[in-house]
Amino acid sequence: MYIRSIFFNDYIPESKRVTLGRTITETDFVVHAGHTGDFFPHHMDAEWCKTQPFKQRIAHGTMVFSIGIGLTASEINPEAMSRGYDRLRFIKPVFIGDTIHSEITISHKGESKTPGYGTVTEHVEIINQHGELVLVCDHLLLVKTGADQ
Amino acid sequence: MYIRSIFFNDYIPESKRVTLGRTITETDFVVHAGHTGDFFPHHMDAEWCKTQPFKQRIAHGTMVFSIGIGLTASEINPEAMSRGYDRLRFIKPVFIGDTIHSEITISHKGESKTPGYGTVTEHVEIINQHGELVLVCDHLLLVKTGADQ
Amino acid sequence: MYIRSIFFNDYIPESKRVTLGRTITETDFVVHAGHTGDFFPHHMDAEWCKTQPFKQRIAHGTMVFSIGIGLTASEINPEAMSRGYDRLRFIKPVFIGDTIHSEITISHKGESKTPGYGTVTEHVEIINQHGELVLVCDHLLLVKTGADQ
Amino acid sequence: MYIRSIFFNDYIPESKRVTLGRTITETDFVVHAGHTGDFFPHHMDAEWCKTQPFKQRIAHGTMVFSIGIGLTASEINPEAMSRGYDRLRFIKPVFIGDTIHSEITISHKGESKTPGYGTVTEHVEIINQHGELVLVCDHLLLVKTGADQ
Amino acid sequence: MYIRSIFFNDYIPESKRVTLGRTITETDFVVHAGHTGDFFPHHMDAEWCKTQPFKQRIAHGTMVFSIGIGLTASEINPEAMSRGYDRLRFIKPVFIGDTIHSEITISHKGESKTPGYGTVTEHVEIINQHGELVLVCDHLLLVKTGADQ
Amino acid sequence: MYIRSIFFNDYIPESKRVTLGRTITETDFVVHAGHTGDFFPHHMDAEWCKTQPFKQRIAHGTMVFSIGIGLTASEINPEAMSRGYDRLRFIKPVFIGDTIHSEITISHKGESKTPGYGTVTEHVEIINQHGELVLVCDHLLLVKTGADQ
Repeated sequence: MYIRSIFFNDYIPESKRVTLGRTITETDFVVHAGHTGDFFPHHMDAEWCKTQPFKQRIAHGTMVFSIGIGLTASEINPEAMSRGYDRLRFIKPVFIGDTIHSEITISHKGESKTPGYGTVTEHVEIINQHGELVLVCDHLLLVKTGADQ
Repeated sequence: MYIRSIFFNDYIPESKRVTLGRTITETDFVVHAGHTGDFFPHHMDAEWCKTQPFKQRIAHGTMVFSIGIGLTASEINPEAMSRGYDRLRFIKPVFIGDTIHSEITISHKGESKTPGYGTVTEHVEIINQHGELVLVCDHLLLVKTGADQ
Repeated sequence: MYIRSIFFNDYIPESKRVTLGRTITETDFVVHAGHTGDFFPHHMDAEWCKTQPFKQRIAHGTMVFSIGIGLTASEINPEAMSRGYDRLRFIKPVFIGDTIHSEITISHKGESKTPGYGTVTEHVEIINQHGELVLVCDHLLLVKTGADQ
Repeated sequence: MYIRSIFFNDYIPESKRVTLGRTITETDFVVHAGHTGDFFPHHMDAEWCKTQPFKQRIAHGTMVFSIGIGLTASEINPEAMSRGYDRLRFIKPVFIGDTIHSEITISHKGESKTPGYGTVTEHVEIINQHGELVLVCDHLLLVKTGADQ
Repeated sequence: MYIRSIFFNDYIPESKRVTLGRTITETDFVVHAGHTGDFFPHHMDAEWCKTQPFKQRIAHGTMVFSIGIGLTASEINPEAMSRGYDRLRFIKPVFIGDTIHSEITISHKGESKTPGYGTVTEHVEIINQHGELVLVCDHLLLVKTGADQ
Repeated sequence: MYIRSIFFNDYIPESKRVTLGRTITETDFVVHAGHTGDFFPHHMDAEWCKTQPFKQRIAHGTMVFSIGIGLTASEINPEAMSRGYDRLRFIKPVFIGDTIHSEITISHKGESKTPGYGTVTEHVEIINQHGELVLVCDHLLLVKTGADQ
């Protein structure tokens, strides 16, 4: 992990970065249930899941989001602040043994009400081993326009 | 945890439910870092944090979201599907030792393109022990209009 | 999870509630060993277990008990206190991949030496996906007789 | 950890062994909640606990039992089988930072219906750093009478 | 676990002890990654590993070392202090499902610069279920020569 | 995390890199004990530690090593293989709340018996918030001399 300053003007629209992959294990299901307290049978009861359309346990939406975003945490930009997320959508279920990675595209830059800052939107796609999109969201950043803090 | 069918017409606009509270511990910080791979010093390096404006470690945004949503997972509605989230915003930092709970208000009901379903929006507010809003988002549900599936 | 007051007179003898199910994973075995410090080969050494009558790793008794009781923790009754357990018996082994749920029957009500309280016994049965009883115990509760605390 | 055969006749009534100690941490509280799914505010909500008689979070009964029994798991006796527990009682609450150890006394030996086996009862006391008894139970063992298996 | 004093003269050159075995699970891989922050694809990305010579995920070297040494922690000798390790070598990869144990041989005794102490070297071999050596190291101890502390 | 090829000739003797810091928490102590099975009172029993020279719980040596090495795992070099470690020494204890980081210096380059490879030694120093060295070791790498694999 590195710390590297990237200012507003350094963000190049449509530029893209791709993370490493990670296999989602049964352990991750159990850890996420225990971490959040969500023990819904969709995630935890293999027998009940056999009676459902998807036939097997499916990952918590909050886990796919948290791990997919975690995969992007390879470089720290001290000039950017996370404001939140828009248009977070669960597209396809993630099953035990699936391998996901994230692709991040600079999709929008704009003015900010905060003087000295601009807004940058990262479009995040979380993709499984079949190349299928499983989750999508827009990450909203507030980024300094210059080093004169 | 219970399973109880709630259909589209059963959702009452502006009705609200409030969850139990949960104290966010240093353990949760460490578990979330290990679960997601995000070991940014904002969450993990108490010495570095002393040099920053907030003076102490702050919770991962994805953790406050995941635990805050997890607190709402007390009742399973088999008639509803989660489509995703909109307008997720990090309002205030959460520190080690803070206690959060969630308040969920039915904020919108609408038509769906999927026949036999309507859309319901739950406005979720995650609130700390001082009554301060720390995270807000809109949870988008697709809900069956009747039992005749 | 809800908080709901249930007083001594509200407990109906022979009434029964059934919990959701949960699949016991290899992760649970590893977590329980690490949580308790019990790394006996019966739970942790798949090779050694192949030489034993049960041929595979078996769950810690304390884990089946803790998770089976945890499954019942869906509703908080502030009028009841847990005094302990009687007649806890391990009936059958639980293996990795088994799915258990709990069934709780109000099996006895009696007088208490503590004024203003009665005793209630919940008979707890933990049952696997084949409908076999794997663990049984009696949970002893002390319950307020009225709201005039 | 060792494997050492101890037969029925080797158990000496009233003999006692004492385990090492272990400090019960906030981490243990969080791990046990996540492991069992029991997120009751008694264990997890420090703010709510301030309004209760005990003023702070108290350990899950199943955790004190599981860890207290885990402390005894220092030596494997392949000639003994655990049948279960009797008279398990929660005597005093365990708080974050308390240090517990277990003391095990051979309290009873008897005949078994299973030929070639006898019954042995271990009386287990779990004791905190003030010398106070916090949990007590009787562990029921079925032990081989001789090596001629 | 026991506490037993073993002084310098009590260590018998070439004497050997063998630990219990433990199956290394996918859970251990996930826990170690989360514990150390090392999410290299060699340990975490099953799809990428299929393209590599070893075809599957391999254990972190630090995990095989930590668990292999942990297996030796069955008896506490208050007269010995660990100074460190020499010649730690990763000989063969450990895969999910492998079962390892450790064999410890007293390989060297010598004089110490610290008065009242001698040096003892434990040669540690970590061995898998096929009898193959997977990791080897020398554990350096400083041991009191007598009880006159 | 990135993948970047660094060949034998690219390693510059005496060049140094410094990792981010990480605060070692009580959670890490509990996780490491549970991960390795080492529940020695030096790490787990705060009351007993009060009677010892260091007065408080001290970190497992294997944990300081594993986390300190984990901190260096920020960049993957597919041209290098880890052979093991030499001269691993525990210099000072690490306590709960200490913050450590690692400093890695290329301390030696040499010929290898394996054709097409050279040996590189990374001298690793793990340092606490007071600037004190707590653990030191030499990491032995086998590195390709060129891209013609």
